Amino acid sequence: MPTNPDWVKALKPATDGAALLKKERAKSDLPVEKLTVFLFGEEFLETRRNILKVLQSEKIFDKSANYYSGRIQRFEAALARAKRLRMLAVEHDWSLEDHNVAVDLLAEPIPYMLHGTMFLLTLFNQASEKQAAKYFMKAMNYEIIGCYAQTELGHGSNVKGLETTATWNPDDKTFTIHSPTLTASKWWIGTLGRTANYAVVMAQLIVNGENHGPHPFVVQIRDMKTHQPLEGVHIGDVGPKVGYNTMDNGFMLFNNYKVPHEAMLARYSRVDPETNTYIKPPSAALVYGTMTWVRSTIVWQAGGVLARGVTIAIRYCAVRQQFQDKDSESPDGSETQVLDYTMVSYRLLTLLAATFALHFSGKLMMEMYQKGQRNLSDKISEKEKEEILSMMADLHATSCGLKSLASTTAADGLEQARRACGGHGYSSFSGIGPLFADYLPNVTWEGDNYMLTQQVANYLLKTARSVRMGFPPVNDTATIFRYFYDRAEMGCAFDILGSDADIVAAFAWRSSFLAFNLLDKRDSEKMAWNDLLVDMYRLSKAHSQYMIVKNFYDTLNSEETKKSLDEKTLEIMWKLFRLYSLNTLESEASEFYASGAVTVKQAMLTRQSAVMKLLKEIRPHAVRLVDAWDFPDWQLDSALGRYDGKVYEDMFRRASELNPLNEITVDPYPSSTTIFKSTGNLKSKL
Amino acid sequence: MPTNPDWVKALKPATDGAALLKKERAKSDLPVEKLTVFLFGEEFLETRRNILKVLQSEKIFDKSANYYSGRIQRFEAALARAKRLRMLAVEHDWSLEDHNVAVDLLAEPIPYMLHGTMFLLTLFNQASEKQAAKYFMKAMNYEIIGCYAQTELGHGSNVKGLETTATWNPDDKTFTIHSPTLTASKWWIGTLGRTANYAVVMAQLIVNGENHGPHPFVVQIRDMKTHQPLEGVHIGDVGPKVGYNTMDNGFMLFNNYKVPHEAMLARYSRVDPETNTYIKPPSAALVYGTMTWVRSTIVWQAGGVLARGVTIAIRYCAVRQQFQDKDSESPDGSETQVLDYTMVSYRLLTLLAATFALHFSGKLMMEMYQKGQRNLSDKISEKEKEEILSMMADLHATSCGLKSLASTTAADGLEQARRACGGHGYSSFSGIGPLFADYLPNVTWEGDNYMLTQQVANYLLKTARSVRMGFPPVNDTATIFRYFYDRAEMGCAFDILGSDADIVAAFAWRSSFLAFNLLDKRDSEKMAWNDLLVDMYRLSKAHSQYMIVKNFYDTLNSEETKKSLDEKTLEIMWKLFRLYSLNTLESEASEFYASGAVTVKQAMLTRQSAVMKLLKEIRPHAVRLVDAWDFPDWQLDSALGRYDGKVYEDMFRRASELNPLNEITVDPYPSSTTIFKSTGNLKSKL
Repeated sequence: MPTNPDWVKALKPATDGAALLKKERAKSDLPVEKLTVFLFGEEFLETRRNILKVLQSEKIFDKSANYYSGRIQRFEAALARAKRLRMLAVEHDWSLEDHNVAVDLLAEPIPYMLHGTMFLLTLFNQASEKQAAKYFMKAMNYEIIGCYAQTELGHGSNVKGLETTATWNPDDKTFTIHSPTLTASKWWIGTLGRTANYAVVMAQLIVNGENHGPHPFVVQIRDMKTHQPLEGVHIGDVGPKVGYNTMDNGFMLFNNYKVPHEAMLARYSRVDPETNTYIKPPSAALVYGTMTWVRSTIVWQAGGVLARGVTIAIRYCAVRQQFQDKDSESPDGSETQVLDYTMVSYRLLTLLAATFALHFSGKLMMEMYQKGQRNLSDKISEKEKEEILSMMADLHATSCGLKSLASTTAADGLEQARRACGGHGYSSFSGIGPLFADYLPNVTWEGDNYMLTQQVANYLLKTARSVRMGFPPVNDTATIFRYFYDRAEMGCAFDILGSDADIVAAFAWRSSFLAFNLLDKRDSEKMAWNDLLVDMYRLSKAHSQYMIVKNFYDTLNSEETKKSLDEKTLEIMWKLFRLYSLNTLESEASEFYASGAVTVKQAMLTRQSAVMKLLKEIRPHAVRLVDAWDFPDWQLDSALGRYDGKVYEDMFRRASELNPLNEITVDPYPSSTTIFKSTGNLKSKL
Repeated sequence: MPTNPDWVKALKPATDGAALLKKERAKSDLPVEKLTVFLFGEEFLETRRNILKVLQSEKIFDKSANYYSGRIQRFEAALARAKRLRMLAVEHDWSLEDHNVAVDLLAEPIPYMLHGTMFLLTLFNQASEKQAAKYFMKAMNYEIIGCYAQTELGHGSNVKGLETTATWNPDDKTFTIHSPTLTASKWWIGTLGRTANYAVVMAQLIVNGENHGPHPFVVQIRDMKTHQPLEGVHIGDVGPKVGYNTMDNGFMLFNNYKVPHEAMLARYSRVDPETNTYIKPPSAALVYGTMTWVRSTIVWQAGGVLARGVTIAIRYCAVRQQFQDKDSESPDGSETQVLDYTMVSYRLLTLLAATFALHFSGKLMMEMYQKGQRNLSDKISEKEKEEILSMMADLHATSCGLKSLASTTAADGLEQARRACGGHGYSSFSGIGPLFADYLPNVTWEGDNYMLTQQVANYLLKTARSVRMGFPPVNDTATIFRYFYDRAEMGCAFDILGSDADIVAAFAWRSSFLAFNLLDKRDSEKMAWNDLLVDMYRLSKAHSQYMIVKNFYDTLNSEETKKSLDEKTLEIMWKLFRLYSLNTLESEASEFYASGAVTVKQAMLTRQSAVMKLLKEIRPHAVRLVDAWDFPDWQLDSALGRYDGKVYEDMFRRASELNPLNEITVDPYPSSTTIFKSTGNLKSKL
């Protein structure tokens, strides 16, 4: 790499970023560490610190080449890191959660990911005892590397439409797995493209000519020694993507590929090899469980992911100075910190409030889910059981809506944070662009964010229908039933500027208004389902926003919170609650008017006085509030978001000292077709 | 590259995309070619066809490796293409516009770009005759390759804050160009990183200790033979970015670098070497011109860029079938085309309407600008001149607001279109992700989209102040003055569902309401400028939306349009006008209520009846409407957006036949630190 001459090395930036951040931190007395402990718990923080130390001590996890490397180099590095992570997990006796913490710090998808999650999980849940004995421990020990092959080139959302078939052969007691068409090709399958030698394959089970729908089969797909695909299996990587390029998402086709009877995962349903008949699962599985958990995790993570972008943007906008405020008559002529412009703080502090809102909702929902699961396993009456199941169904619907809202909020919020960084936000060194690119699949997978809202609305419609039919609430834990039921008592003019409880009530009111409005359209006006999809999307959003506002409110009101946080911190958290709620209300104002929840005057005052005032009150604490998220610099890998504020030094170092493009000298003239005059030791780098 | 076995080659997709698109095109009788000619003119289309033929006939422009290549390979290919384009321009006698058409078809930024635009333009506008003789023809002939070095590491938006200095030395009649700090480093300079050997450098001119502000200097920066940076100049590429990676954006620092007197571009201002004094420009330059033109171009291009994404998404969503509509009882059990779901058509057809809206506004504004310029050069009275200048100032303010709105609409719209493609939208092969990434700088450069709205609001405030003070309108061509002035006559209850003219009037009403509201806050309540930035952003958006709606309306009402388009096409264009306008109105409903322009009831009906009905009426024409944009497949380079609908075949071909990652075989076990088992001929590819 060409080195910087001495006169360049001697230069200092005109802006002292370190001093500016120091001043920022001095402006506020928010006890950062206490808030951090409140957010994550001491145990988790301790674990994270220890794992970080381990990772930073090994050269293989050095990130300095990441932003410059092409696809193949990045995949190569990621696989090497995945291998090392696995060895470290064994060495340090890491749990699955510990391993996930390490991947989170590494901040890149690793090629083993689907082995460690969906492949193992499916074996665990769906394998018979015999199958578990054969595969599970081998998979746990990484003697076989698996993936989960469900989505196809032609079908993603509609699982029932999968085209891959598994036909039972009574003669030799085998299944034939087959791809009848090109669109039957498995597609997007993580870990499959280059890495896995086993797969759980979802295929239409056909017995005696009858189709019993998609079922899982565990199948060897590559040779254990040569790693070549087996005869009759065609596999490859699906190619480059917007992000996630350290992962080998794969495709796979089968040509009448025979697998033994034991390939079909037989814990619940199976084919009897004696009678050649299909045996149904004893009861439709209680699917709420895992899915509620997965979606609540996405909500919880959405807060954290967004917080990474917001941390970077807020620190940089506190360091970046540009222009003087038009009315300012600063005596020293120094420029204004960009974060002081209300157009910037309006964008970034509202996102900051959203990070906490999402974090609390995800956390609360996971706790509720776990509590429900625990209570179910106790010895309880049928009536109690029914109540808990009703609450769990409620929670499931809400988790679908929140998954949609939270991942959209995080994805769009990251891009907003990137733009708030101005020109330098476009550099990979900002760290936000690459994070956004890797995060984007979240708006599509685990239920596309638009599609999913149909499920939410469907559940809300059913609940509204029950309420209208006069059924009493099952119990107080079924939130949706409760707030639909209570709407008559609420009234519909809320003091959103004077009472926090009224803010929550206004959100409940608007959501139930939309729900009953939709019910009229569907049941009375008999409108077509397809003509109501936009209303359903809006209803799901309204319900989810209500839940987030309610969860934020409940969290701050809880005894645990009051015990954990000092008064000053709690006061700022309440301000963040109001900022999130009132800003959301204002941006959805027309639905709040239409429902009669607020007046036009109230909504105007909301932004013009309440929100703008909150921004000013929160502004001095902005840097400390992002500090509370406690992201190590190593995780953020951002020149703009450094804890120490040395933004410009880092931008320059990454451009001039690490950038391999600077090793080449070109021939610039169009009359010559030669491009490179010299390439230095570039080849060795590629 | 591993080849697909014969059994794979024999597979067909279950969905016949070609048949589906054929059916789509048969559903509508919209005369596509006529609409295309109306949009672009026959001459332009002829040119584009010819240039496309030239490009497609040369292997150097083959795009098949683009999506797989790393930064250095992409830069290398782009420079090779830039060179060849230049030679072709000479060979075929291409104008600058022709050259731009070629780059647009190539669809990647080329490393010569800033030479061909800003470097040449600045020499043309600001060089003295002597300087022009020395540099201009050389630059035109690419004997010197230049760039335009303004932005610095520490300053982008605030040009007055630049830190690079150019100090006049009376003794030897030279300037010393110097970077006093690290943040003085030039940054983001296109074409500088590896390619240019000359630069126009903007630096603070210091004469006799007095700073006269930023001035341009033309400076040699690299050796003409070795291409190494000259002594005292330090240059490099700034590193990888979200997109735009075929361009070598560079940094540059100067260490007391001496340049001759003639380096300062001296057409308007100069340093007299005899008296050692600074000579000011005779009058503040009429800067409106170029900037209005550049911004109108961004508006016009925004329509086209967005249309590329919308073309891809609409074609793919017409081919993709998923689920059955919940109420449907389709006898053949076939799945529904995704585009038929209202949640999808709502998102994509409103974007489709926006493409036309932006296109017409950009076109109309460029025409108005050119007309104004032409009329100015005629022999006209002082009064007429004043009128034209007033109109041009108006146009300038509007072009700022429209640049902000249009580029945000296009950038966000591209991402919306990508998400509407579901999972496959995430593949690079969709073509939308890479386009989005390359387009993003538009929201920041030529005036950051948030910052710029202050300028717009400032102009609108001044105009509102004049109106309030009772000044009569200068003339009818100054739109802003006119609609502010006329607001009293408008009344404030508009029949937006019954009258197209009323739709336009409602937008005018809301914008002028916001303007006078802001004027009250600033002038009567004496609110701080900084506390009004969010209001200014909203006002600018409101004014810009009004202008787009008005321009769309005026375009469809013009005699030329009525002559060019048949009745049926015109009818569909009016529907697109209504869809764009009413959907915009509904999404900004709270401002329309607050201003009294519409009632809550009207706004609810707008979406629930008018917009949903328009979607159904436009839906059959969707594919033909995107066909009218006439993008060659070669330009889109998208598996999903193919004209022939062969989506799945192309996805599979790009993954299995072109993807270099599939050349490697890995060792998958964590116990081994080896990654690659074999690399085939991969190295030769890197």
